Amino acid sequence: MWDELLPVGRFQESGGYRRHAWTSADAECRAWFEEQAGKRGLTYEVDRNGNQWAWYGDPEGEGAVVTGSHLDSVPDGGAYDGPLGVVSSFAALDALLARGVRPTKPIALTNFVDEEGARFGVACVGSRLTAGVLTQDQAFKLRDADGVWLPDAMAAAGQDPAAIGRDEARLARVGAYVELHVEQGRHLAETPHAVGVASAIWPHGRWRFDFHGEANHAGTTRLEDRRDPMLTYANTVLAARKKARLAGALATFGKVSVEPNGTNAIASLVRGWLDSRAADEATLTALVEEIGAAARERAERDGVRAEVVRESYTPVVDFDAPLRDQLVSVLGADTPVLPTGAGHDAGILSAAIPTAMLFVRNPTGVSHSPAETADEADCLAGVAALAKVLEAMSCR
Amino acid sequence: MWDELLPVGRFQESGGYRRHAWTSADAECRAWFEEQAGKRGLTYEVDRNGNQWAWYGDPEGEGAVVTGSHLDSVPDGGAYDGPLGVVSSFAALDALLARGVRPTKPIALTNFVDEEGARFGVACVGSRLTAGVLTQDQAFKLRDADGVWLPDAMAAAGQDPAAIGRDEARLARVGAYVELHVEQGRHLAETPHAVGVASAIWPHGRWRFDFHGEANHAGTTRLEDRRDPMLTYANTVLAARKKARLAGALATFGKVSVEPNGTNAIASLVRGWLDSRAADEATLTALVEEIGAAARERAERDGVRAEVVRESYTPVVDFDAPLRDQLVSVLGADTPVLPTGAGHDAGILSAAIPTAMLFVRNPTGVSHSPAETADEADCLAGVAALAKVLEAMSCR
Repeated sequence: MWDELLPVGRFQESGGYRRHAWTSADAECRAWFEEQAGKRGLTYEVDRNGNQWAWYGDPEGEGAVVTGSHLDSVPDGGAYDGPLGVVSSFAALDALLARGVRPTKPIALTNFVDEEGARFGVACVGSRLTAGVLTQDQAFKLRDADGVWLPDAMAAAGQDPAAIGRDEARLARVGAYVELHVEQGRHLAETPHAVGVASAIWPHGRWRFDFHGEANHAGTTRLEDRRDPMLTYANTVLAARKKARLAGALATFGKVSVEPNGTNAIASLVRGWLDSRAADEATLTALVEEIGAAARERAERDGVRAEVVRESYTPVVDFDAPLRDQLVSVLGADTPVLPTGAGHDAGILSAAIPTAMLFVRNPTGVSHSPAETADEADCLAGVAALAKVLEAMSCR
Repeated sequence: MWDELLPVGRFQESGGYRRHAWTSADAECRAWFEEQAGKRGLTYEVDRNGNQWAWYGDPEGEGAVVTGSHLDSVPDGGAYDGPLGVVSSFAALDALLARGVRPTKPIALTNFVDEEGARFGVACVGSRLTAGVLTQDQAFKLRDADGVWLPDAMAAAGQDPAAIGRDEARLARVGAYVELHVEQGRHLAETPHAVGVASAIWPHGRWRFDFHGEANHAGTTRLEDRRDPMLTYANTVLAARKKARLAGALATFGKVSVEPNGTNAIASLVRGWLDSRAADEATLTALVEEIGAAARERAERDGVRAEVVRESYTPVVDFDAPLRDQLVSVLGADTPVLPTGAGHDAGILSAAIPTAMLFVRNPTGVSHSPAETADEADCLAGVAALAKVLEAMSCR
C-alpha cells in the first residue's frame, strides 16, 4: 500500500514531493484512495468540499468514528507528512477487522483536500470549508501563482465549486475525529515511546515585514547616502531569533522577496515573512510586538520605512480533553502527551467536533523536507495504536 | 530629440526603463539612433558586434574622435544612465558645426550595445567584444533568464552572430573615445561645477555567497535543532556593511535567492550576491577576504556550510593621463577630477585605445532607479563641454 503511493508526485531533482491540491499528482493520490476503499468494499464518497471518505458501516449512522489525514504536500515535502495518517487509517481498520472486532458505530477513513495550502496560500482548505471557518466567498478569491482560481482548479478536476461550504449534515453524523501524524520535532525521539497523544496546537501566525528603502547604484552610492532595506531586514532576522530564544518560542524568516533584486543595485524593497509560534497567545503577541519594535528602531537608523502586516493568525487549539484522556487510558498511562507548533485539519475541525491526534516518533525531527523519515517499527506501532483507539471508540 | 526617446521601453508600473539588449524596446532605441544619423546626413553603420556608429567625415580616415554611450538600461532604470551620453553626442556635434567649426579628423557618434548586461548577465558586451576582452566562444555561452542564447537573440534582431569578435581594423582607426555620463553619486552635487572629468574606475567585482543549511518545519523545529542559513546570511549582510565602512570602501548585498522560500519552512539554501568596490585592488581583496571570514565564522556557529564564489572581477582602470589632462585644460583648470565605482564601456575600451569620461552633475546621486535625474541646465553644460572637447580633439 505504502509502496504504491511512494512514487506519486515525487520530484526527481530534490527527491521531495510536489503533491499540490487539484494537480495531476493530487489526482493520482486521490485515485489511490478510491482504489483502497474499493478493495475493502468500503462505501466511497467525495463530500461537497472535495474531501474523500471511505465508510465501514452505515454512512448515515450516528456518532461515526472518523480517522485520516491528507495526501497533499508542501513544495519538496517528505513522504510521511499526511500520507502516513491516511495509510495508517486503512492499515488500522484492516488490523481491527482481522482481529474479529465488530464495531457498533460507523468508521470513516478520510483524505482532507489541500491541507498544506502550498498552491493557494491557505492551509487546511478542505477542513476549513467543512467547519465553515472558510466561506465559499473567501475560497472563490484564492488564486495560485499561475493565476488559476481555486474554483476553476476544482471544476477542472471534476468537483462542483458551487457546492462548497460548511457541511452541517456531515458534521452532525461525526462523533469524533482522530488524526495520526508523523511528529514534526524530536520530542518523542528523546523518549522510549513510539507514539504520543497531542495536547494542543500552539497559537501561530504569519506576519509580512515590508522594508521600503531607495533603489540606487551599488557601485557609486556612498554608504552614508544609502537607504538600504537589506540592512534592516538582516538586523530584524537576527533580532527575531534572539527574542524568540529569550521567550522560549519560535520565530522564523524563511521567505524573502527583493526588488529590484539586482547584484549592482541597492534594494528598494525587501519583504520578509515571519512565522512565529508560542505556547500561549500572550507570549506570541508580546514576541511579535518586540520583533516589530526592533524592526522599526533599526529602520529609523537606516532611513527605511518599516511596515508590519499580519497575514494570518490561528489561536491556540486545546484538543478535546475527555477524548485525549480516553486515548491515553487506551494506550497506557505513561503515553507522552505533547503540544505541537504545526497546524492540522484536526485543529480546524476541533471548532466543530471533538478531535484528537496521535504522533509517531520522528528520529531526526526533520519535516517538510525530502529528509523527513520514520522507522518502520514506529509506523507499525502507530497503526497498532490507532487500531486500539478505533476499537475503543467504535465499540461502545 | 530627448522627448522622442523618453517613452521607449518605459515600464508603466514603476516609471522605470526596461531597455534590455536585443529586445523590442532596444530595437526602438536603435531605430531612433539611425534616424538621428540620417537627419544629419551622417554615415550610419552597425559594426560586427552590433554597436551603432554615425560618422561625420570619412569613416576610413585616421585618428577618429569617437564619443557616445549606450541606450540600454538596467531593470527599472532611469532615463539618464546611457541615453544622456548618446543624446549629448548628437547635440554637441550640432553645436560644433553651428559654430562653423570644421573638424580635420573624422568624428563618430556611437551607441554601444548591451552595456548594462541586464539580460545576459555580462556588462559591456558590445565594447568587450570589440576590445577582444570577451571572446566569441564566451559570448555564445551567454543565455537570458528565459533560456534564449545571445547569438539567437542577435540573429533574431538581424545581426549576424558569426561575425562577432575583436574588431582590430576598427580600433586602428579610432584615435580616442570620450564618453559623457550622468554622475552616479553626489561628488559634483557638493561643488559649484556641473561637469567633471573621470580619473579612474575603482576595481570591482561580484561574489556569490552560498549558505547551505537544512530545510525543516518552521513551526515545530526547536531553535537548538536548526541549521538555518538565513541567520548566517543576515549576519554576513551586516558584517559586510561594517567592514566596508571601516575600509572606506563599498559592499552591498542587493540580490538574494532562497530555497524553498516558504513561509513555514526553514530555508535549506540562501544565496546572496556581494557587490564590492574600493579605490585600490589591495583594499578590495582584503575587504572581501574579511567578509568571507566573517561568513564562515558565523556559518560554523549556525551549523551551516558557507561557500564563496567569485563571479566577476574588473581590475582598476586609470583613464589615459594625457587625454584626461587635455580635457581639464580645455574645460578649465578648476574642473573636478573624480573617480567612479561604476563600470563603463570607456573603461573596457581603455585596454585598447585612449579613453576619457565626462560626468554631468546628479543632484540626488540616485542612479539605476526611476528617480535618477539631472537638471536641464547641467545637461546643457555637459553638451557645451563635450562640444569644446570634440573641437579640441578633432581640429589638430
